[in-house]
Amino acid sequence: MNRDRKHDHIQLAFDSQTSKFEQDRRFIYEPMLAGHPNGEDRSFAFLGKTMKAPMWVSSMTGGTEKANHINKNIARACREFGLGMGLGSCRKILFSKTYWDDFNMRDIIGPDQPFWANLGIAQIEQLLKDKNENAITNMVGELRADGLIIHVNPMQEWFQPEGEHIENPPVETIEELLSRINVPLIVKEVGLGMGRESLNRLIHLNLEAIEFAAYGGTNFSKLELMRDEPEKMEMYQPFTFVGQTANQMVNTVNQLLQTTGTSTCKQLIISGGIKNYLDGYYLVSKSELPAIFGMASQVLKHATGDYQDLKTFIENQITAYRFAQNFLKIDPEYDGE
Amino acid sequence: MNRDRKHDHIQLAFDSQTSKFEQDRRFIYEPMLAGHPNGEDRSFAFLGKTMKAPMWVSSMTGGTEKANHINKNIARACREFGLGMGLGSCRKILFSKTYWDDFNMRDIIGPDQPFWANLGIAQIEQLLKDKNENAITNMVGELRADGLIIHVNPMQEWFQPEGEHIENPPVETIEELLSRINVPLIVKEVGLGMGRESLNRLIHLNLEAIEFAAYGGTNFSKLELMRDEPEKMEMYQPFTFVGQTANQMVNTVNQLLQTTGTSTCKQLIISGGIKNYLDGYYLVSKSELPAIFGMASQVLKHATGDYQDLKTFIENQITAYRFAQNFLKIDPEYDGE
Amino acid sequence: MNRDRKHDHIQLAFDSQTSKFEQDRRFIYEPMLAGHPNGEDRSFAFLGKTMKAPMWVSSMTGGTEKANHINKNIARACREFGLGMGLGSCRKILFSKTYWDDFNMRDIIGPDQPFWANLGIAQIEQLLKDKNENAITNMVGELRADGLIIHVNPMQEWFQPEGEHIENPPVETIEELLSRINVPLIVKEVGLGMGRESLNRLIHLNLEAIEFAAYGGTNFSKLELMRDEPEKMEMYQPFTFVGQTANQMVNTVNQLLQTTGTSTCKQLIISGGIKNYLDGYYLVSKSELPAIFGMASQVLKHATGDYQDLKTFIENQITAYRFAQNFLKIDPEYDGE
Amino acid sequence: MNRDRKHDHIQLAFDSQTSKFEQDRRFIYEPMLAGHPNGEDRSFAFLGKTMKAPMWVSSMTGGTEKANHINKNIARACREFGLGMGLGSCRKILFSKTYWDDFNMRDIIGPDQPFWANLGIAQIEQLLKDKNENAITNMVGELRADGLIIHVNPMQEWFQPEGEHIENPPVETIEELLSRINVPLIVKEVGLGMGRESLNRLIHLNLEAIEFAAYGGTNFSKLELMRDEPEKMEMYQPFTFVGQTANQMVNTVNQLLQTTGTSTCKQLIISGGIKNYLDGYYLVSKSELPAIFGMASQVLKHATGDYQDLKTFIENQITAYRFAQNFLKIDPEYDGE
Repeated sequence: MNRDRKHDHIQLAFDSQTSKFEQDRRFIYEPMLAGHPNGEDRSFAFLGKTMKAPMWVSSMTGGTEKANHINKNIARACREFGLGMGLGSCRKILFSKTYWDDFNMRDIIGPDQPFWANLGIAQIEQLLKDKNENAITNMVGELRADGLIIHVNPMQEWFQPEGEHIENPPVETIEELLSRINVPLIVKEVGLGMGRESLNRLIHLNLEAIEFAAYGGTNFSKLELMRDEPEKMEMYQPFTFVGQTANQMVNTVNQLLQTTGTSTCKQLIISGGIKNYLDGYYLVSKSELPAIFGMASQVLKHATGDYQDLKTFIENQITAYRFAQNFLKIDPEYDGE
Repeated sequence: MNRDRKHDHIQLAFDSQTSKFEQDRRFIYEPMLAGHPNGEDRSFAFLGKTMKAPMWVSSMTGGTEKANHINKNIARACREFGLGMGLGSCRKILFSKTYWDDFNMRDIIGPDQPFWANLGIAQIEQLLKDKNENAITNMVGELRADGLIIHVNPMQEWFQPEGEHIENPPVETIEELLSRINVPLIVKEVGLGMGRESLNRLIHLNLEAIEFAAYGGTNFSKLELMRDEPEKMEMYQPFTFVGQTANQMVNTVNQLLQTTGTSTCKQLIISGGIKNYLDGYYLVSKSELPAIFGMASQVLKHATGDYQDLKTFIENQITAYRFAQNFLKIDPEYDGE
Repeated sequence: MNRDRKHDHIQLAFDSQTSKFEQDRRFIYEPMLAGHPNGEDRSFAFLGKTMKAPMWVSSMTGGTEKANHINKNIARACREFGLGMGLGSCRKILFSKTYWDDFNMRDIIGPDQPFWANLGIAQIEQLLKDKNENAITNMVGELRADGLIIHVNPMQEWFQPEGEHIENPPVETIEELLSRINVPLIVKEVGLGMGRESLNRLIHLNLEAIEFAAYGGTNFSKLELMRDEPEKMEMYQPFTFVGQTANQMVNTVNQLLQTTGTSTCKQLIISGGIKNYLDGYYLVSKSELPAIFGMASQVLKHATGDYQDLKTFIENQITAYRFAQNFLKIDPEYDGE
Repeated sequence: MNRDRKHDHIQLAFDSQTSKFEQDRRFIYEPMLAGHPNGEDRSFAFLGKTMKAPMWVSSMTGGTEKANHINKNIARACREFGLGMGLGSCRKILFSKTYWDDFNMRDIIGPDQPFWANLGIAQIEQLLKDKNENAITNMVGELRADGLIIHVNPMQEWFQPEGEHIENPPVETIEELLSRINVPLIVKEVGLGMGRESLNRLIHLNLEAIEFAAYGGTNFSKLELMRDEPEKMEMYQPFTFVGQTANQMVNTVNQLLQTTGTSTCKQLIISGGIKNYLDGYYLVSKSELPAIFGMASQVLKHATGDYQDLKTFIENQITAYRFAQNFLKIDPEYDGE
């Protein structure tokens, strides 16, 4: 090595000397205490069905060629790997069959996997006001879905150009719906999560599950919707960093269970900012309610092309999740943030 | 997807894996417990008038074409949206009518909104020394202003080339003025805020309000003033990071109220580093004294052009503020820094 | 100085004003209490031999021209400076003499320095299953090595394309080996370290030493191995930040000793993320078990060329280590992270 | 404003939203309680002389045209503003008059200001060994200096190519010197400061002052010295971040005084990493021993040209320091780091 190159090398070492090293402190690696996973059966009951791996996949609302392709890929993967599937907003098929094929996935996912329809809270409020709640029962029935996901998104409705306003607190609308129809319900937010008081109300309702859809993924997609209205963007942008993370929500639900002792809602779908199987493994392990994890954007990205791409992605996520189960312990001294 | 693009994608995910995610921990989002705002009347008494929204706008000192245009836009918006307005330094019209039109906004803002004149502490000290305090009473009267804002800026006066020195502690000058004239007073700093002892003295004076003008906005404007004197800039620059933030000042005033029990100053205008309605909502919610928030530079930026631009900006700020009132709770475990 | 240059200078000072200054808080510098090191003998017993400086060097597995050259340089330096040497994986010479010369370093390192062979846990498990443990005894004997290092690497084996799976917990495999052969053993990880439970099991085995091979060096080399399989890379990458650092492991072993009182494993080789003599000095000083430190990549880098380069590097590391011993105290109030 | 520019503006606001704002939390600004400084006499006794402002200036060792010019500028400024001056290493004039003029500043600084000679600990050790301590007394006497600064720099001597080694602990060498000659002494480090045990020994010696020369300025200058020896640079660089800051040292001395009750060393010169008058004001205010502050590199930079440049710089520093005295309080809840 000549003098100049040595000099460069030392300078580089000097520069990097001070850089902080990122460690994933959520986990303690224990390599001495287990052998490798060997394909044993790890299936479990969830949402009244049997799942083979603790993953939930949210698909897209219909209306485009792409959505049809993506939803079919997802349904197929859920069947192959024993996962659960939630549809995007089904508003388009509530009173019309035009896009029915984009949502009609029961034959593809098969009878054994969880498969759920989806409507927004503003739509539910309107249907109740119109005493038209049977439209929901009918739609869920025709889809042969296991129940209905209600997405509660007051911020989106307030700031988006075409948003609809709601009159009543969502929790009251949900209570009213529960009193009128006999369809199993999941309640979710859409990217901001929710705080202690909202969760406290929900866990005492007769829900099949709460899906977090927590803060932590990118919110830029919402800004995109306002690209042509810079004034609306400016109004909205301070909210870009508002919300509760999946980790905060798991901690909150755990604390509520310790305080109240019981929950009529017995399951969680932990989603929102889950980037990979390690995030999922961490939060599912910490949750005191039975839980699975959902990855929306990561899965959608792999579902746009050949089924083989999606298949490999999900297979790899599960393979890695199995390794984590055998060799990673949750560090109880680390709070996850 | 081909191999290279996949590779790039994975590398990108890998790189961003470690980036910290910024969350606005001041708030807890509670989407389940309220409906959308529906236009109900939320007006309240402040500074002896009735305001429709908790925003205060500081305008510019006169003397330029631009200032006249800006001040008129601001006065018009205050009238339309029910806000309060503070003038910039009125020194130029104390003994001359040359720039009178730049400050004479009562007819535009109308009789129902707070509208306040403004002088610096060095000027007040001089007027008292000259036993010429009637000049103040006359100016406020002719402007049909609701009272006088005194800006206290010893640092500015010390470091600026043309600055004037003060002989006495500002709080004593203010006490002296209170004993001599019968004009309602607001006291403010000009970009650095103030500490516990200063606030403790002020809240026990007979003031209508304290305006914070806290540290947290950019101080570069002050450096600009010294652009031609680099030695002065070098002398001044370590002070660039000195001051008390609006959040610190709210905490301090709250603590002083808990300690002393009373305050003869009964209102706060929280300003300085308030970038948007969320900053304002947070601090107004935390303050134990009745408070509104002020945004200087943000509003000025929108007031330089058509009135429509300013109108849209303020309308949007209020619309978003209303949403925050219904759906965001202050996190009591977070201290706001 | 002209105005513009002054201006630039001040701006620069202004910009750097806010930059954080990195201080190495592990140490307290005490310049008043000692003279300079004067070449006194500081040799000590370790692994049954006598070492002159507390450095351990890990060499490369054989099979290339380069490895042969590097290993010879390392063995020569260990002899000259009184250090200890661990071979890379000896799997290639377990049943074949093809690459024997790349590992056969006893004549170069000489009889007085620690010199250890090395095999992976998957290989050990297989040999035990085949009742072929004598192959180990024979290999160690022929190498005239002081014993065997077992590297335990379930993560590497799981994610690498050509990885082998293990059936049993490594600690049980090691116990079994200890019961069958009479070869001194060192156990190490390979870049992720290990947690409390793994360490607790190991310190109660009859081991000569545990080598940390902790988390903290770069893991990119592992990603390199998967460069042709982007899907595997994507699967693996969240694990890139998982592991226990050398500092965490020293703290854990110290705590275990305080709790359990004894350790049948009486020595530590602290390695993994040790960038220089200061890292080594800090951790060796903190360890309650007798310890030395290992630097793998730093030494390898200097061992690829002339022996003189390696000699200078090691001589300098030891010279600086001696200075640290006289003038740096460990700050007990700082935890080392 | 057109749509695109608006869009850019909003994006910018969005990007900067998350940037942290740096606040100087050492101080609380109290604008209401004092008038401006008015030129009152603030002189005080220090090192047996009377100083008009609490600034200490370290000058350069002689031997170059530049040093002569710089030292004369500094001596002149110390006289004009009532400051104290420490010479650079006087080794060159211990046994030779070649560079005498570069150090002979008493006539310029005048009889009323502190003016001190300077030698390194290695030199002192050698002189004591040679029983030649009278050379020190003679040199100090001929310079008409008020005493001798001993700089203790074992790290510099160890790592620099031409460094000299010391045999005895510096504190013992200093004790020996105190017992042999009757010259007032100041002891300082040279850029790394020192820890509790060193300070504890020094404050119980019969010293006029300790000068910190703490860690916190740039150490790159030392690396420069080794530019032609990259191997030495690599050896040295981990020490680049080692040392004790001026703030840590003030806290340590305060704690030692509280523990031991007394100090035979009664004064401090706080230097090392003092970038401006605010750093100086903070640390001088916190010190329980009478203290002044030293700024080496900042002053040297202004002393290379016309005297007017240096004069303006120092005048401005003192002007700003006076403002700080009237309007800034030290925040007792902030520890200064």
